[in-house]
Amino acid sequence: MTGVITLADGAGGKASRKLVEGLFLAELRNPLLEPLGDAALVSANGTRLAFTTDSYVVRPLRFPGGDIGELAVNGTVNDLAVFGAIPLALTAGFVLEEGFPLEELRAIARSMARAAQDASVSVAAGDTKVVERGAADGLYVTTSGIGLLDPRVELDVTRVRPGDRVLVSGGIAEHGIAVMLARGNLELELDVESDTAALHGLTAALCALGRELRWMRDPTRGGLATTLNELAGGAGATVVLREEAIPVREDVRAACEILGIDPLYVANEGKLVAVVAPDAADRALALLGALPLGADAALIGEIRADDIPLVLVDTPFGGSRIVDMLVGDPLPRIC
Amino acid sequence: MTGVITLADGAGGKASRKLVEGLFLAELRNPLLEPLGDAALVSANGTRLAFTTDSYVVRPLRFPGGDIGELAVNGTVNDLAVFGAIPLALTAGFVLEEGFPLEELRAIARSMARAAQDASVSVAAGDTKVVERGAADGLYVTTSGIGLLDPRVELDVTRVRPGDRVLVSGGIAEHGIAVMLARGNLELELDVESDTAALHGLTAALCALGRELRWMRDPTRGGLATTLNELAGGAGATVVLREEAIPVREDVRAACEILGIDPLYVANEGKLVAVVAPDAADRALALLGALPLGADAALIGEIRADDIPLVLVDTPFGGSRIVDMLVGDPLPRIC
Repeated sequence: MTGVITLADGAGGKASRKLVEGLFLAELRNPLLEPLGDAALVSANGTRLAFTTDSYVVRPLRFPGGDIGELAVNGTVNDLAVFGAIPLALTAGFVLEEGFPLEELRAIARSMARAAQDASVSVAAGDTKVVERGAADGLYVTTSGIGLLDPRVELDVTRVRPGDRVLVSGGIAEHGIAVMLARGNLELELDVESDTAALHGLTAALCALGRELRWMRDPTRGGLATTLNELAGGAGATVVLREEAIPVREDVRAACEILGIDPLYVANEGKLVAVVAPDAADRALALLGALPLGADAALIGEIRADDIPLVLVDTPFGGSRIVDMLVGDPLPRIC
Repeated sequence: MTGVITLADGAGGKASRKLVEGLFLAELRNPLLEPLGDAALVSANGTRLAFTTDSYVVRPLRFPGGDIGELAVNGTVNDLAVFGAIPLALTAGFVLEEGFPLEELRAIARSMARAAQDASVSVAAGDTKVVERGAADGLYVTTSGIGLLDPRVELDVTRVRPGDRVLVSGGIAEHGIAVMLARGNLELELDVESDTAALHGLTAALCALGRELRWMRDPTRGGLATTLNELAGGAGATVVLREEAIPVREDVRAACEILGIDPLYVANEGKLVAVVAPDAADRALALLGALPLGADAALIGEIRADDIPLVLVDTPFGGSRIVDMLVGDPLPRIC
């Protein structure tokens, strides 16, 4: 592997996958890292924990619906929650650019505190480094988290079976579009807010399904399309979606059409994808729909046995198309 | 608090302390964060864990004796080890600058893998973000770690008593001087290597002292002087050092003299400070001295009751001077 890092390497799609597998996994290979999930499963004295980290470089630092602090807390809470873990504690490591306004830093810390409180978790430890003017773009933050695994569930992509149902907890593509609009280089008069939110309430509700809950993920960078491709690859089966069942708010859909972007590839920061046993789909929808964050939850597709695992979208006109992982990076620094 | 971030805010001394207390603790206050240690103590289902994070922005990325990858792994292992915890798992979050050479990234990942293996710990999860050219300086990495607390010890600065002895595991100031020399803007012909090393072996040995082991720290940014001021403040007692007992390698001392820097303020990345009960000092020295990393361990001072907690250095000429925390930042981006 020669060459240099490109923006696509950080976009969460095909290039990211290649970098992670070809370089990081190749060098750091160990049984904990190998599943390449968003969190690792660690056993401490018999206590089963999830452990995760994410770096945040979103630009701008504030956007409609949130800021980098809230995003970082929610993102780490969500990486734990979708592994069926109850978040216990977070850490935050800041890289600050010399000259960054203290009042802005205070507002970001405050918004982290609020998000942490909403998720019933504490920022337990932190670190701050400062680099010279021009060596960073204001502020980057890396949050890590540990959570306690819910013993009722056994979430594993290899437990996904043909016939299992695929659900999403609400409208997609809101975060990515909100951040793009916030950058102000588009002349669109739309009022889209990021969906940044902590999903621990939704995931805890679904854990009541026990072993009928197979797998969960939050479709962030690379959007729903990329997450479902990871599902298909991991399960060794095809994911068949019904296009008209996928919830997309009207203004978000309009923005995507104007921008020529497929909402399936746009980042979400407060949405959940869940795979459940066929008989559990109605109960799962009821559990999600009973919570405000799951009010627009929908059954969007199912798993089908297939020799070549794919993500297929059935269109309302009777056709179907293949939806690949994200290639390139249409929206750099979205989180 | 108005104004902007300065390089001193990231130096680990007085300004860092003010930023952490006046901004981060003020906004994020919670019982886990409040002790402001380098790691937080978290209970998971009755299992007692230490949880820590550190961001690394060292410049240059490679220096005599190590690189940013090794430094990040050892630093996180050490933050766990000095809390009496056996490292269980690490995570790594990368912020990469577009255009960063893949071969250089591979070498850094390889060096993280080697350091992790040496410390019997795995990098269990990670994340990669990419920012545009000019929005970072090559690569920043944030490592986090969890460790299992050793039940034999109860390490707490409030258990430090007058008469307790202060030990250091070897020569100080090597990392900071090595990085300064590596920057190449000094015309010194000295061959100083960073002391970057994992301290879990030394700390595990000292844990055999049980409750006679009071407190441990690794004196990184801000050097031994800053760490001992935190000790004095936390214990509410004065630390009295014997200057000639503090180990400093001859070439390091020479470099410090030429540069006009006090070695007490220069960062270490593989040294341990321990406070032990008076009767345990000889045993502690023997335990450290039996291990290669502790071959130059020394008893450097003791704790004295005092109304105003200070760090005092008794000089060989019969006088004594007050050693304050680091003020300003003589060596930006040392780790």
